[in-house]
Amino acid sequence: MPVLYPPGTIGIIGGGQLGRMMIYRSKKLGFRFAVLDSEDAPAKSLSDIFINGSLKDPDALEKLAGVSDIMTYEIEHINIDALGNLESRGYRMYPCASVLGIIQDKGFQKELFVKKGIPTSSYFTCDKPESFDFSANKFPLVQKTRRGGYDGRGVRVLKNKEDAPMNSPSIFEEMIDINKELAVMVARAQDGSVAAFPVTEMAFNPDHNICDTVIAPARIDEKTASCAHEIAISVVEALDGVGIFGVELFLDNHGNILVNEVAPRPHNSGHYTMEACVTCQFEQHIRSIAGLPLGDTSLIRPAVMLNILGQKQSRGKMLIEGFEKALNVPGLSLHLYGKIESRPYRKMGHFTVTSGTLNEAIEKSEYIRNLLKIGGENTEGDSK
Amino acid sequence: MPVLYPPGTIGIIGGGQLGRMMIYRSKKLGFRFAVLDSEDAPAKSLSDIFINGSLKDPDALEKLAGVSDIMTYEIEHINIDALGNLESRGYRMYPCASVLGIIQDKGFQKELFVKKGIPTSSYFTCDKPESFDFSANKFPLVQKTRRGGYDGRGVRVLKNKEDAPMNSPSIFEEMIDINKELAVMVARAQDGSVAAFPVTEMAFNPDHNICDTVIAPARIDEKTASCAHEIAISVVEALDGVGIFGVELFLDNHGNILVNEVAPRPHNSGHYTMEACVTCQFEQHIRSIAGLPLGDTSLIRPAVMLNILGQKQSRGKMLIEGFEKALNVPGLSLHLYGKIESRPYRKMGHFTVTSGTLNEAIEKSEYIRNLLKIGGENTEGDSK
Repeated sequence: MPVLYPPGTIGIIGGGQLGRMMIYRSKKLGFRFAVLDSEDAPAKSLSDIFINGSLKDPDALEKLAGVSDIMTYEIEHINIDALGNLESRGYRMYPCASVLGIIQDKGFQKELFVKKGIPTSSYFTCDKPESFDFSANKFPLVQKTRRGGYDGRGVRVLKNKEDAPMNSPSIFEEMIDINKELAVMVARAQDGSVAAFPVTEMAFNPDHNICDTVIAPARIDEKTASCAHEIAISVVEALDGVGIFGVELFLDNHGNILVNEVAPRPHNSGHYTMEACVTCQFEQHIRSIAGLPLGDTSLIRPAVMLNILGQKQSRGKMLIEGFEKALNVPGLSLHLYGKIESRPYRKMGHFTVTSGTLNEAIEKSEYIRNLLKIGGENTEGDSK
Repeated sequence: MPVLYPPGTIGIIGGGQLGRMMIYRSKKLGFRFAVLDSEDAPAKSLSDIFINGSLKDPDALEKLAGVSDIMTYEIEHINIDALGNLESRGYRMYPCASVLGIIQDKGFQKELFVKKGIPTSSYFTCDKPESFDFSANKFPLVQKTRRGGYDGRGVRVLKNKEDAPMNSPSIFEEMIDINKELAVMVARAQDGSVAAFPVTEMAFNPDHNICDTVIAPARIDEKTASCAHEIAISVVEALDGVGIFGVELFLDNHGNILVNEVAPRPHNSGHYTMEACVTCQFEQHIRSIAGLPLGDTSLIRPAVMLNILGQKQSRGKMLIEGFEKALNVPGLSLHLYGKIESRPYRKMGHFTVTSGTLNEAIEKSEYIRNLLKIGGENTEGDSK
């Protein structure tokens, strides 16, 4: 596969915060960036070429392909038929459309894991949950719609057979006895070489089921970490993927590691790499898709990352509270995504605290969590 | 002074590599950036608003002021009368025009240092060197034109009275018995608080007198480092400056530290902070001019930075040699400035190597220096 040299152009399908960070963290390599998204996209102002259009529109995708030497995406909910069509006509894309095809469907993901002997929770698929007879099943069950889930959407826990499932083709997983949720960012280059970042620990907010806190490194023993690395790498190899992948794992109370799911792009659990690792996940992604050697993934300092979500009782023009106080904390690095409007639970930014010790970083991050808030100028009642 | 909150707009006069890095390293804070420069400026593609014009054109400067909440600059050779005029009409600018007025003239700089008791080499000024009688002077003398010098231009060493001086208003300094050239980046906030980055060691290439290598931290004892810090801070305080300043120092063979000169902006000697410090010089500059608390300047890892200059025997469309090999070195971070044309000695990029020990970083940087080259596609004879 040929190497892309600067000032070659990399097309990004999607201009959200991941596209934005991809550009501001890898512009240093000298590439040009073309972005396809709607006018208010956070990555727009950083792009060399901006195409205003829908990620699902074949014409817009074709336009992006026409100005790009290689393409990638920062979101998985895109038009895969259009991508496959572009690929078949010689446009280069990483990860390739067939990888995305597997990942877009949680049923296909599970099937691949099972086929390749990758540990994952037991499951069954069902295309019409509304007419399925659950009377023989053991509860609780975790229902996940096969397609379209994101940040907690498309997931429902069925406690017993009276709980109504979502009416959409789904997988149903046995409930894992979770000790910790772990994540590993893995990059795979065009030549098949791989590099994994440190294992992290994710905590989710039960209020909205969006990843809330990422702790790096995960507080697990070495054997567990090395097992998590091995499994995460095997997932990306099973996909034959090129690019960076976020592999989400469960560590259960018996010490087993099971793959939950995989994202074919930079991932929330890898944001901490910008401050804490020699190479960050965004540059690593660009290196891998450009045919370049992978960078050094070593952890330099322990880190804690927290998402900043729009306050649940307001929306409208973004207002920040505690901005100066937060910036006054040594080791704080703040990333705001340039979204003008705040909405309940919208990802408005994140911050990472690095420190000499993990405990110090945790303490500081809790302090900042309590003072830094983003909301909209219009307050709403609880009813929204 | 009021705080600038995101998404406020920061106007940058000049869109060269410093403006480019300023944006890609501080976009994370959520500000918008307006840039004034010519169409091929490296920072253009990262700006929210781009104004095509000359840095000396009052109308263009006025246009930039009109779209910016605050302004700053990334180069000191700009129209100071126009800036002063804008300031007097209420536009905010940091560092302010009067600071730039002192710095633009090496005679005024020297005068300030002497007035404030800041150690610097002894000197005299002369407005018409071509008709000056040097017979009573001790040689060698270092002539520096009062205005317009940059990257080794505007400096001449006169070995004896037969050497012809440049015909321009100048200062003449006694030659220092230099042991090392040091530099300290100092940020000063609107409330007068200051934060200094670690002391670095600069090496210049005798071929072109452009800073070639920066070593962080400088290999000097603690007492010398603390003295360098103190002097560098006193320079920025003497200027009453707000923003980041690069203070260049001489350490002589008797252990004395003397101020050479000061730059009112991010500086080549501070590029290493992007990889080696908790906060980098670019974000620190934006924090200080936006009225925000200064960030943590701690060094996390030793670092060596090398400039990548256009090869001297070629020009034209940029070609890179050794790109993949360089990127294969663990700890390497490469910054290319997006300049399409290479010219002899043009600053095309730089790289920083961080490592566990300074010696390792030095070794790796020498290895990369020998393999990574940027030139133009048209080879020239020695005569240019």
